[in-house]
Amino acid sequence: MSVGTEWLVDAAGCSPERLADLAAVRRLLDGLVVELDLRVVGTPSWQKFPEPGGVTGLYLLTESHLAVHTYPEHGLATLNLFCCRPRTEPPWEERLADALGATRVLVRRVGRGEGAWQ
Amino acid sequence: MSVGTEWLVDAAGCSPERLADLAAVRRLLDGLVVELDLRVVGTPSWQKFPEPGGVTGLYLLTESHLAVHTYPEHGLATLNLFCCRPRTEPPWEERLADALGATRVLVRRVGRGEGAWQ
Repeated sequence: MSVGTEWLVDAAGCSPERLADLAAVRRLLDGLVVELDLRVVGTPSWQKFPEPGGVTGLYLLTESHLAVHTYPEHGLATLNLFCCRPRTEPPWEERLADALGATRVLVRRVGRGEGAWQ
Repeated sequence: MSVGTEWLVDAAGCSPERLADLAAVRRLLDGLVVELDLRVVGTPSWQKFPEPGGVTGLYLLTESHLAVHTYPEHGLATLNLFCCRPRTEPPWEERLADALGATRVLVRRVGRGEGAWQ
């Protein structure tokens, strides 16, 4: 019994300036929402933290959730996208290079629910 | 370079009634926040979906995030806890059995960020 796929995406080598720019990170997530035809419930939660100025965004979706955390001090961003409906995988490397300047992207795919029944 | 541990927790064999009870699921998450000394930023987002009546909760934390989705039709709950600070692992099986009647709990631990540098 699987209830969907969660993508765990870690992007390294990003521009520290972009990672600390809430508007830039928000554009990335809002673009993914449109591209993947995700349906946002309510208002996404965004938070800008003190220096080094990382940001967090959380989107509650009818399909589950989308989350991002950035670490300007490490040039790193982490994303989670949990979709309970089948969906074409986005071109993570391209999107993260364009939006944040990522030079290396690790994508892990986890089937949620299925392992708990084995 | 790791920026923290994410726990992916899938709980099966849960009570469909508990899974559809937003207040019960919320008590579980609020209890974890206290037990793990997590710091919530802003107001958690909660949503109750139409029949079969699953619920979603998202907590933005200074430590990263905490999320839950429930599937009463499958007796299943999925939780994510991403902590960017070292933290003792909670007794997931016990907490999920007590709160939701889970009979089987699968816990996966993912180091975030580290793989992107390899």
